[in-house]
Amino acid sequence: MSRDAPVRPAPVEAGGAYNRSSRVQAAGLLPAVDLFEAAAKDVELPHEPQSIVVADYGASAGHNSLLPIGVAIATLRKRAEPGRPICVVHTDVAENDYTTLFHTLATDPHSYLRDDHAVFPSAVGRSFYQQILPSNTVTLGWSSWSAQWLSRVPAPIPDHVQVAYSRDEAARAAYARQAADDWIAFLTARSRELVPGGHLVVLTMALDDDDFGYTPLLEGIAAELADMIREGVVSDAEVQRMALPTVARSEADLTAPFAPKGRFAGLSVEHLEMFVADDEIWRRFATDKDAKGFATRWTAFARASVFPTLATALDDGPQRAGQFFQRLESGVSARLADAPEPIKIPLAKMALVKQSWPR
Amino acid sequence: MSRDAPVRPAPVEAGGAYNRSSRVQAAGLLPAVDLFEAAAKDVELPHEPQSIVVADYGASAGHNSLLPIGVAIATLRKRAEPGRPICVVHTDVAENDYTTLFHTLATDPHSYLRDDHAVFPSAVGRSFYQQILPSNTVTLGWSSWSAQWLSRVPAPIPDHVQVAYSRDEAARAAYARQAADDWIAFLTARSRELVPGGHLVVLTMALDDDDFGYTPLLEGIAAELADMIREGVVSDAEVQRMALPTVARSEADLTAPFAPKGRFAGLSVEHLEMFVADDEIWRRFATDKDAKGFATRWTAFARASVFPTLATALDDGPQRAGQFFQRLESGVSARLADAPEPIKIPLAKMALVKQSWPR
Repeated sequence: MSRDAPVRPAPVEAGGAYNRSSRVQAAGLLPAVDLFEAAAKDVELPHEPQSIVVADYGASAGHNSLLPIGVAIATLRKRAEPGRPICVVHTDVAENDYTTLFHTLATDPHSYLRDDHAVFPSAVGRSFYQQILPSNTVTLGWSSWSAQWLSRVPAPIPDHVQVAYSRDEAARAAYARQAADDWIAFLTARSRELVPGGHLVVLTMALDDDDFGYTPLLEGIAAELADMIREGVVSDAEVQRMALPTVARSEADLTAPFAPKGRFAGLSVEHLEMFVADDEIWRRFATDKDAKGFATRWTAFARASVFPTLATALDDGPQRAGQFFQRLESGVSARLADAPEPIKIPLAKMALVKQSWPR
Repeated sequence: MSRDAPVRPAPVEAGGAYNRSSRVQAAGLLPAVDLFEAAAKDVELPHEPQSIVVADYGASAGHNSLLPIGVAIATLRKRAEPGRPICVVHTDVAENDYTTLFHTLATDPHSYLRDDHAVFPSAVGRSFYQQILPSNTVTLGWSSWSAQWLSRVPAPIPDHVQVAYSRDEAARAAYARQAADDWIAFLTARSRELVPGGHLVVLTMALDDDDFGYTPLLEGIAAELADMIREGVVSDAEVQRMALPTVARSEADLTAPFAPKGRFAGLSVEHLEMFVADDEIWRRFATDKDAKGFATRWTAFARASVFPTLATALDDGPQRAGQFFQRLESGVSARLADAPEPIKIPLAKMALVKQSWPR
């Protein structure tokens, strides 16, 4: 992958792995569904013939979208005429697995297509750091676990795969700058796309005070990679190139564009909440005391969400990725099983509204 | 692939192979671009805020869509306000390669996104034998080399892979019935989706009198498969299961739903032309006398467009497909190189208009 290409967790790895391992994310996103439901209740509906449009920014393979989009549709349907079309646009990068997305929509028992035949899904395979839908057309926007992925890898991280765990000042500064730029680009594009009066709900990785979270998992990955270098499984240069282009934002980071008057590009913040999501995998362990199960579940999440990005740093990546995945997975899993501890998942949820037309 | 699943040439084989081999189709579709351009000139444009929507039904990986959609956009742009959004919806089955489609749109030098920044592409991965876009929203529809693919394999073809070359009456009847049903389903769904006054242009495989065409290619495939059975490369049962769910329609087939008053579901036929497309590969051979090049080019077309469907009949398909492809390709190519002759490409092009709102 080119350093300048848009980067994502590459959900193409083992069709559906990201979907299956996304229970962690499903747990984390539940808290924002209430905000999205409230938005669907409050938003002004466009007059016909303008369509009701729900946009899902960063849909991945669709599994995590079914619940929130379904809730929004059910809420909108109560307010709109029975047969009135509701368009749902799932966006992600071009590399995303749209075949799984459309299969999920067609076959999943929780698909919103089951209950409402006047819903029309589509997909847009373009980075959301630009305008990708026509101006003033989106009634409701949803973006979950996506805005944390930067538009590009801004710099190497010499001493870790995650910049939050790095002590390299240059890397930290480059990531902070990119995160600020990308957040502004994201908000600017969404503001254009939202209809006046439209609502946008964002759930994204956040800092809990200064804590990025995920410590046992990320330290496990870093330690295992160090072992793999020592054993010659990967080279020092390869691990040096490994960098997860994800950022956790603080409350100040999220609100910065809106200073000083609480408004940016016509958007205002209706709700912002920093919180730590419940680690459901840990909760299960607290009951069943199955350390191996705990480790397996968290490692599966890491494998689906971040291993593919790490593997892009391998020379001859496609040939060696399988072996790399296996070794890293078993190593990280063994480390987690040795000393299970709860994993902190800091998140932010945010509801934004675009200024209405003047009356 | 299940017998009831929607079937298509499975362009997933070797990313981009279908795109690259589509020069044959590019030649064949050029004749209909004039109809589509005329439609873009004549069609009533919707009033704002309703969007201008161009739908591309059966987009495959997008290569063949760039020219016709680009022509329509350029024509519409002359009539619409400079910054007015034009939405382009590329539809195909869920299995289609949308990643290549979005990459093609982003990077191809002939992409319509290069010239016009107020164009917004999206994709719908659902069979076009149902309504897949909201009612009364599509300004212009385009469907090229797609309506010939049936919604399902209606029956086995015991004596050939293509029903037009079969003498089995039951198979011929089942295919004819499915072709009639699918054509009605296609037209009914498009009629709902088109805005009143909207235009639809269809290019599809047709009969030249009763001739399906492609004789040397299809007879070459049948003969090679027979050899492969004798040599034990494939089993008799596997070849028995191989069936291309494509049909060529006669003028009577195409117009049947419109009898007796020239109207069906609000659609009327503005233009219908049965013709035989120029075999550009043959024309090149007539100049360069390169029999091997001739054979290679036609076989590449067959490999990309029909071999994947044939391979779905193999036991352990994924394991044996590569070997099957190679053998069938080299065998068919050798047969074509031995006795080059022009290949007939019978097509129909059709322009349909949906009744306007009463004034």
